[in-house]
Amino acid sequence: MNIALLGCGTVGGGVLSLLTENADKLAERVGAPLVVERVLVRDLDKPRVAECDRRILTRDVDEVLGDPRIHLFVEVMGGEGLAHECIQRALRANKSVVSANKLLLASHAAELVALAHEHGADLAFEGAVGGGIPIVRTLREAFASDRVTGITGILNGTSNYVLTRMLDAELKLNAAVAEAQALGYAEADPTMDVGGHDAAHKLAILAMLAFGTSVDQPIEPLSGITEIEPVDHRFAERFGYRIKHLVIGRDHGDDVELRVHPALIPERSVLANVSGVLNAVLLEGRALGPCLVYGQGAGALPTAVSVVSDILDVARSIVAGVSGLQTRGIKLGRVRPRSEIETRYYIRFSVSDEPGVMARLAGALGDQAVSIEAMVQEARASVKGGPATVVMLTHHAREAAVMRALAELANESFMAEPPHLLRIEDV
Amino acid sequence: MNIALLGCGTVGGGVLSLLTENADKLAERVGAPLVVERVLVRDLDKPRVAECDRRILTRDVDEVLGDPRIHLFVEVMGGEGLAHECIQRALRANKSVVSANKLLLASHAAELVALAHEHGADLAFEGAVGGGIPIVRTLREAFASDRVTGITGILNGTSNYVLTRMLDAELKLNAAVAEAQALGYAEADPTMDVGGHDAAHKLAILAMLAFGTSVDQPIEPLSGITEIEPVDHRFAERFGYRIKHLVIGRDHGDDVELRVHPALIPERSVLANVSGVLNAVLLEGRALGPCLVYGQGAGALPTAVSVVSDILDVARSIVAGVSGLQTRGIKLGRVRPRSEIETRYYIRFSVSDEPGVMARLAGALGDQAVSIEAMVQEARASVKGGPATVVMLTHHAREAAVMRALAELANESFMAEPPHLLRIEDV
Repeated sequence: MNIALLGCGTVGGGVLSLLTENADKLAERVGAPLVVERVLVRDLDKPRVAECDRRILTRDVDEVLGDPRIHLFVEVMGGEGLAHECIQRALRANKSVVSANKLLLASHAAELVALAHEHGADLAFEGAVGGGIPIVRTLREAFASDRVTGITGILNGTSNYVLTRMLDAELKLNAAVAEAQALGYAEADPTMDVGGHDAAHKLAILAMLAFGTSVDQPIEPLSGITEIEPVDHRFAERFGYRIKHLVIGRDHGDDVELRVHPALIPERSVLANVSGVLNAVLLEGRALGPCLVYGQGAGALPTAVSVVSDILDVARSIVAGVSGLQTRGIKLGRVRPRSEIETRYYIRFSVSDEPGVMARLAGALGDQAVSIEAMVQEARASVKGGPATVVMLTHHAREAAVMRALAELANESFMAEPPHLLRIEDV
Repeated sequence: MNIALLGCGTVGGGVLSLLTENADKLAERVGAPLVVERVLVRDLDKPRVAECDRRILTRDVDEVLGDPRIHLFVEVMGGEGLAHECIQRALRANKSVVSANKLLLASHAAELVALAHEHGADLAFEGAVGGGIPIVRTLREAFASDRVTGITGILNGTSNYVLTRMLDAELKLNAAVAEAQALGYAEADPTMDVGGHDAAHKLAILAMLAFGTSVDQPIEPLSGITEIEPVDHRFAERFGYRIKHLVIGRDHGDDVELRVHPALIPERSVLANVSGVLNAVLLEGRALGPCLVYGQGAGALPTAVSVVSDILDVARSIVAGVSGLQTRGIKLGRVRPRSEIETRYYIRFSVSDEPGVMARLAGALGDQAVSIEAMVQEARASVKGGPATVVMLTHHAREAAVMRALAELANESFMAEPPHLLRIEDV
């Protein structure tokens, strides 16, 4: 079983080490030794892990992709352009591919899966979603005879770390982000993470695997965590909730609901205790019921372990001559529009502290048939004459109705600032 | 791919239904249609699921096991005698077997895995551990190139339901057990569950899969949940913990630590929010770090889904001609004796409310080098002159040292009843 590694950074180096350390065990399970024949790199002189035989390094893309000895390509270079081209060329040559490239798969998974299917090859990408969490194989294996109806996940370690620190250390958002950056958990520009875009990429891949549905537009997060303030954590706690940045997918048959936003979830939910940089995905199966997997969502070593699991799986299929059987047909799905979402809402108002305001707020919601489950006004404004805080929790309502109520209130003179809206999910 | 079903109760019926419903999808992934050729039953006239063709029912064990057309046997009859014999005969005939028989596997897994290995057959038993939780495949696939160093699990739904209800509804143990029985979550004789024996069976199977170690003695639970009183939940909560019935396995290289007992775990732990009849297993991998799987630990339908996942997996190996490669060598391991366990302890004393008692308790622990992290005495005894409650939380200590301290205190005249000991696990 000859393997070519495309890239040899931290994940690729980890893969090389794991393949060497576990050579006997893996060979026994595959029925043939796994031999890394070629390693494509950009720089021949850069230091590599001890397990890397420098004689197999090459900078020549065509040489690697054209090598007839290679059975299996492992793409761990990251990025889009070259990685995309390499995977396409390998699949077109009927060779199976393992990839850990989240960014690429998020936008091109459906195309590449179809290409693999067409050419009787496997395309495995456990490492691309949730690092070391075995979510792809759980979807494919454990749910082989079940139907997944819902996905709820915490899939961005940076956002989850920030929310955890806001709650536990009572930090403000910016301070928590700065801390995450200092620890290497957040990029210098954290927009992709705290804005929800990274989580949206992963949801796109998971929805495709879980529902067999791809969408022709990138999923736009309804909101990131940037608008959350310490006061929201305090109110959430008071009502028995914790704020988490969620991805939510639901298969309604006619359409799919795909949402990315922070939400209040019950403090007794398993997801509520997913802290720091850890990730988790809760699947809801028609027969299996709830099934959650949890672990390190990123990191070179966990990702390398996932890549090696994929190599094992794909190599077994190659030896058995049954490659290309593990993909399923993917149909283009309709995404449920935001206005049709139904859930519960947490709305925090900053209003001038004058008589009749509460009634006016409740009235505007009531006019749209949005019924209120709980309402609390914080003790008098800290600054005399300054704004007071009112929080309302609604029963289930259509997002469009809530939006109409808030639009109607927007121009009221008592509104000190625009209302803050969060969704409540009973997971 | 011809299958014989051994047994056709609720799980077997579920398997038949799922195989029928998903026939096309499964055939595509296996590369051959899955055909149930024979179904072994005790009673030919009993009503069966609609998907069951009565013409393939038989009561004749020899006929089924001797049928040369069968490639794969699925044992869903349960029990030990006949099931054991059937699995042995199938494996000796070099036929692969899928089983969901927890009781049988707990005591005979090592023997049957060795037999399968010897005959180049597969033996899969996802359904036997944790019902619908994909724990066996996570151990085998996700950890293929990693080393599992620890297992912490909540593996008995009945015990977990009872503890959850004691905490949430402030029920006494007996009332919570009665409620579980009324709901069908507990047997008429709940000893196997609340005593920890059922969880110990599952730990034996998991330790074998995770560490490659089998033990020649059944694992004896250190304690069940029967000694837990509502007051323990109150104290646990006060210190930021929740009480859960755990199985714990650790591979120390020279020996394995295998424990089954209730424990205090931090209320912010993911395991703390595993409520009701749900199960979870937290694995600790050297490379992967923590990895948790969670779901329905029992129930006919979740178990049937797991059995069908196994059928898919084993059938793929048969088609590919690579059966028998997925088992690993199992060595007989030494179990770390109880006296050598090191953990933290919660000790609740009932003592007469007189001066000097606290000092005497602390002194006895101190004499054994057991250091105290926290100590609390409940407000005066409810009955004047009646016993007072003192709770101590220790730092890490050897179990032998704690036992010596408690033995020394046992005969003190101020001891109103024997101390209650629980362990504290920082998971």
